[in-house]
Amino acid sequence: MLENRGKAIQKFLYPKSIAVVGASADLSKINGRPLKNLLEKGFSGEVYPVNPKYAEIAGLVCYPSVQALPVAVDMAIIAVPAKEVVPSVRALGERGVRSAVVFSSGFREMGVNGAALERDLKAAAESAGVVLCGPNCLGFINAFENVYATFSQYADGETGAGPVAFVTQSGAFGTAIAALIRERGLGLGYFINTGNQVDLSFVELMSAVIEDPRIKLAAGYLEGLEDGDQLVALSRKCQQLGKPLVLTKVGRMSSGARAAASHTGALAVSDSIFDAVIRQYGVLRARNEEQMLDILEALSQPRCASGLGVGIVTQSGGAGVMMVDRAEEVGLSVPELSEDTKKKLFSFMPSFGAAANPVDITGQFVAEPGLLIDSVEVLLEDPKIDIAIAWIQLMHAHIDKLVSIFEQAHAATSKPLFVCWVAAPADAVKRLRAAGIPVFGAGERAVEAAAALATHHANIRRFHEEGCATPEVAASLESVQYGVQPTVEATRRLLEAGIPIVPAFLAVSAQEAISFWRSLGAHSVALKIEAPDITHKTEVGGVALNLSTPEDISQAFDRLIANAPSARVVGVVVQPMMRGHVELVVGVRRDPVFGMIVMVGIGGVLVEVLRDVVFRKAPFGPKEGLRMLNELRMRTLLDGVRGSPAVDRHSIAQLLADLSKWAYEMRLVLNELDLNPVLVGDSGPIAVDCLMVFAEDDQ
Amino acid sequence: MLENRGKAIQKFLYPKSIAVVGASADLSKINGRPLKNLLEKGFSGEVYPVNPKYAEIAGLVCYPSVQALPVAVDMAIIAVPAKEVVPSVRALGERGVRSAVVFSSGFREMGVNGAALERDLKAAAESAGVVLCGPNCLGFINAFENVYATFSQYADGETGAGPVAFVTQSGAFGTAIAALIRERGLGLGYFINTGNQVDLSFVELMSAVIEDPRIKLAAGYLEGLEDGDQLVALSRKCQQLGKPLVLTKVGRMSSGARAAASHTGALAVSDSIFDAVIRQYGVLRARNEEQMLDILEALSQPRCASGLGVGIVTQSGGAGVMMVDRAEEVGLSVPELSEDTKKKLFSFMPSFGAAANPVDITGQFVAEPGLLIDSVEVLLEDPKIDIAIAWIQLMHAHIDKLVSIFEQAHAATSKPLFVCWVAAPADAVKRLRAAGIPVFGAGERAVEAAAALATHHANIRRFHEEGCATPEVAASLESVQYGVQPTVEATRRLLEAGIPIVPAFLAVSAQEAISFWRSLGAHSVALKIEAPDITHKTEVGGVALNLSTPEDISQAFDRLIANAPSARVVGVVVQPMMRGHVELVVGVRRDPVFGMIVMVGIGGVLVEVLRDVVFRKAPFGPKEGLRMLNELRMRTLLDGVRGSPAVDRHSIAQLLADLSKWAYEMRLVLNELDLNPVLVGDSGPIAVDCLMVFAEDDQ
Repeated sequence: MLENRGKAIQKFLYPKSIAVVGASADLSKINGRPLKNLLEKGFSGEVYPVNPKYAEIAGLVCYPSVQALPVAVDMAIIAVPAKEVVPSVRALGERGVRSAVVFSSGFREMGVNGAALERDLKAAAESAGVVLCGPNCLGFINAFENVYATFSQYADGETGAGPVAFVTQSGAFGTAIAALIRERGLGLGYFINTGNQVDLSFVELMSAVIEDPRIKLAAGYLEGLEDGDQLVALSRKCQQLGKPLVLTKVGRMSSGARAAASHTGALAVSDSIFDAVIRQYGVLRARNEEQMLDILEALSQPRCASGLGVGIVTQSGGAGVMMVDRAEEVGLSVPELSEDTKKKLFSFMPSFGAAANPVDITGQFVAEPGLLIDSVEVLLEDPKIDIAIAWIQLMHAHIDKLVSIFEQAHAATSKPLFVCWVAAPADAVKRLRAAGIPVFGAGERAVEAAAALATHHANIRRFHEEGCATPEVAASLESVQYGVQPTVEATRRLLEAGIPIVPAFLAVSAQEAISFWRSLGAHSVALKIEAPDITHKTEVGGVALNLSTPEDISQAFDRLIANAPSARVVGVVVQPMMRGHVELVVGVRRDPVFGMIVMVGIGGVLVEVLRDVVFRKAPFGPKEGLRMLNELRMRTLLDGVRGSPAVDRHSIAQLLADLSKWAYEMRLVLNELDLNPVLVGDSGPIAVDCLMVFAEDDQ
Repeated sequence: MLENRGKAIQKFLYPKSIAVVGASADLSKINGRPLKNLLEKGFSGEVYPVNPKYAEIAGLVCYPSVQALPVAVDMAIIAVPAKEVVPSVRALGERGVRSAVVFSSGFREMGVNGAALERDLKAAAESAGVVLCGPNCLGFINAFENVYATFSQYADGETGAGPVAFVTQSGAFGTAIAALIRERGLGLGYFINTGNQVDLSFVELMSAVIEDPRIKLAAGYLEGLEDGDQLVALSRKCQQLGKPLVLTKVGRMSSGARAAASHTGALAVSDSIFDAVIRQYGVLRARNEEQMLDILEALSQPRCASGLGVGIVTQSGGAGVMMVDRAEEVGLSVPELSEDTKKKLFSFMPSFGAAANPVDITGQFVAEPGLLIDSVEVLLEDPKIDIAIAWIQLMHAHIDKLVSIFEQAHAATSKPLFVCWVAAPADAVKRLRAAGIPVFGAGERAVEAAAALATHHANIRRFHEEGCATPEVAASLESVQYGVQPTVEATRRLLEAGIPIVPAFLAVSAQEAISFWRSLGAHSVALKIEAPDITHKTEVGGVALNLSTPEDISQAFDRLIANAPSARVVGVVVQPMMRGHVELVVGVRRDPVFGMIVMVGIGGVLVEVLRDVVFRKAPFGPKEGLRMLNELRMRTLLDGVRGSPAVDRHSIAQLLADLSKWAYEMRLVLNELDLNPVLVGDSGPIAVDCLMVFAEDDQ
């Protein structure tokens, strides 16, 4: 079955014969444009228009119906009114056609009736054995084989094939991005608009085209996502193939996410979780279409960045400052140059220039091209410099000279060289790009692109070191009781999983509580009411802390029982009091899109105000745990403030990794876990409170 | 004297005669290019080349020396080697010339010797009575009167005059920005590069050109700033004239600021203070050159935004979502439409479109132009919508139709209408701009520009309501003792200024401390060691809190005295303990650039980690104080968290305003004041600790 699906997708992407169901003789209409495109752009296979109204269109025999097709074509374009789509799909299935793209709109995007029709379409495609792209899409282009199964106006211009595969959920925005890719001369090999994704999804199509060896990098535009695991699998595949995947997803903010949900009808995926998970698996996120293009341009050159050090050569001190600012913001470094590098720079730098990083060569380099070439070369020889950016402006009178200077500088080095050319002559930009040198129109954008390149290569090194295979962790099939887990039971489970948590004892009398306190060596203890329906114990007066005498314990026990609202009280949990000078919150959620997600944040009274939390998809190792801690905005708290000592980040990272592994094993039953707070002191982290909820995975 | 200076600046900007000292017969050289520009661009005044080497240049009589000039020209361009600049300036002064621009480099930017030469130049200009722009600059352009006193390559292209005045400290970056302004067709009236600013400064020149009624908006590029008060005065002038001032300053981050200081040699102004103060006075800050251009484009159209509500019309749901996201981030709202507006939209919207905000009209509008026109019109009729943005893409086949659609939509409305056109045909962009409609190439950029427009008009309303005149607050001339002020004395001063602070009593014996405690009604008190050289009392064990018995007070008194390191202990301060559920830090600093700066931040243990602080230049009123609180990242703390009640923001704002007024009065002596913490409880804020330092203002 899966094998058949794979074959059908191959026929879809690489058809030797195409039918256009509902073809129009007016080649400017939506149902005429694909015919025009296929004929004009040199599709070498057979094209079969289908429409009872015509005997012939544009010199091709037109067939009255799908049944009448002389062959079972590899792929069909369906461009008929919405109500005729389902019969067309059935007819195609009967005729032996295994793949189709549906342009027609009038489905989910049209409300309740449309959604019903879309369900019918899904069922019809399944039973007819036809894989479907769309409906409500612009179609797709395979520019290598001249398959222009689209009515997108992108096809109106030049559409030479190239190394970029672009898959988009949006038609209009996607067309705009495709046009921008063309403007940059990056070369689009595939352009696919997935529309309503009744069958073929963004991930499935991207996974298919990324395997094409002619494709070097993948770009995607997303509005919603149903299956996070598929996206993770795609990310892994891209890592294994060494091909970068760049994604733009709208709906970053809460209001945008609402608008996105109402626009796409898709499940609103939490953007902070989406963002964390895709970065975890090495996807580069572009915040908008301009940044996507900049990142694609940076990645379309083949040189590697071995680190985060940027060397800047500029003819304007101010531009240098601006780029240094941005580099700091995006996590790059602008290293001090070695003494050796400085010495070399001083040897040829004009006295009014600056032989530091940024290197300010002033406008003098137009008269002395060697200045720029030598500066770039010397910079890139410095072991701390991984990428060079050269900044210039205007210079319409010197295009030939400048292009040649940059070509020489590029040829003389092997590390990545970017040019930032403000108010550049269009011709110069074109020529530099043709020479394989990325060109940006603004300093900050060049720096952001350099950060993306550096991140991509850091990801490759990371996956090389840490592996990117899914660990084989079987899901626990243990039969459990759903709902809030008793504290003692939850504590036992976590201790078994190696998670440090304070011991808990369930006392049903004050005497039992006192005995347990004695067994702990008579240190002070906390008492907490235990009842399955009381999850916020503090709010009902269900917690007493710092108890260190039998009298206090006894009184607290009685008070807690008395305070408890009419709930199923099973007793009082007794736990030793712990100390720590850093307070964390750690948790696990079952995310409907991405599955088990582990969270860590800075705890305490400000946690709700600051929401300084970081997410990762489980399972992951301790190195990933360390990276989580490094992403906390208040991470300096971990290094000690106001005289308190630094805490051991490794022990926290290990806790997070162990928790992620356990959570992943428990994925069929664990719905929610809160360890709040986790106190971190000299002997590492320890959870002092725990709420564990089991529930069936209803996905 | 000042009047003479004003006259000289007028001659500088609007010369009827220009000498070029050091003119070259090679019109492609730095010292030849201004001649070429003046002649070719139609300068109608007289031009006098000065160079002993030539008798004539480009058909003009060339004079052997400044002395030989037949008239005292209005302005001289000095383009001679550095060492000849000072003699040239002296000669110009003797010849009666009152203004000049110095292209020559070889001054401060060249190190110690150059700096000495620059001091000589400053002195020479003063004694010769010549106002000077530069040295080390590209010169300037007054495009209205065709004064092309520059060798900037910007002058090589078309340079039609227009409503934008652009003054830049950087030559190369400034030229790039000028070229970008030209690319947008915004029209540059003045282009001035201030170079090393030995005499005429950025602020002085901008203040002069902003008065030109042909100038509608001002743009500046800054790398450093010496005199903040001058910039504030310029900002006020722009507000009074109703002309927006847009500034880009590099050195936002610490590393960038370091690079800027080393590049310009200018005083490194704290960026966070710079940013706060210019916004306080209504300046718009552009983070980089691209944003500057976008803001200029938005402001170059004359329509007003009466509020922060943006209405979005788009042919792509995804683009709408992206713009909604960005609007939230930059402080705009994307309001829900009124029922009436929705009804009107429903009446003509295709069923697959969305009649909400964003309005999704889909690609259908190309077939039905009325869709877009009507949508924009209906949106802008909604009282909550202040600015409309229409998003489209590509459409090379429909330029005429689309331009005409937008022109009609624009004509049918009176609120600002922006077009965002991704991958737009260049011709369409040009025609829309010619029709007075701002056009942007990316949705996020259109939203950012809309935010700038809305902010500008909000500023105008704010200054209209609150006034923008400098309050007449005389500086206190009281003679004071410099250094750390005794707590009792500092407390008295603050109480007199109306600043709530706990009473403080200096006890020199335990008995005195106990008596004071009794006089307070025997509530608990704090004891703090008092010694002028102990500023961090906690760190030396100099603080005891929550003392409520005579024994405790007595013991604490002795302990504090014993703990004090060999310091000039004058006693122990006794203060009543206070409560509050929000902890703030409030302070005053004398900033070397901007003078008295008031700061407020969230206090507590995290203050060093979060640096959640906001600055304002003193003095200001309570409304500005409220705006400060609204800018705190953790402002929701003020609204109450975890069950604690909200605090009264107005009483905090009043404290800040009162403090700002007092600090401004004390500007000649107050160097530093820390109120940390200020506790805010049910009865408003109260400072419970105070460090006040007086020092001479050495600026």
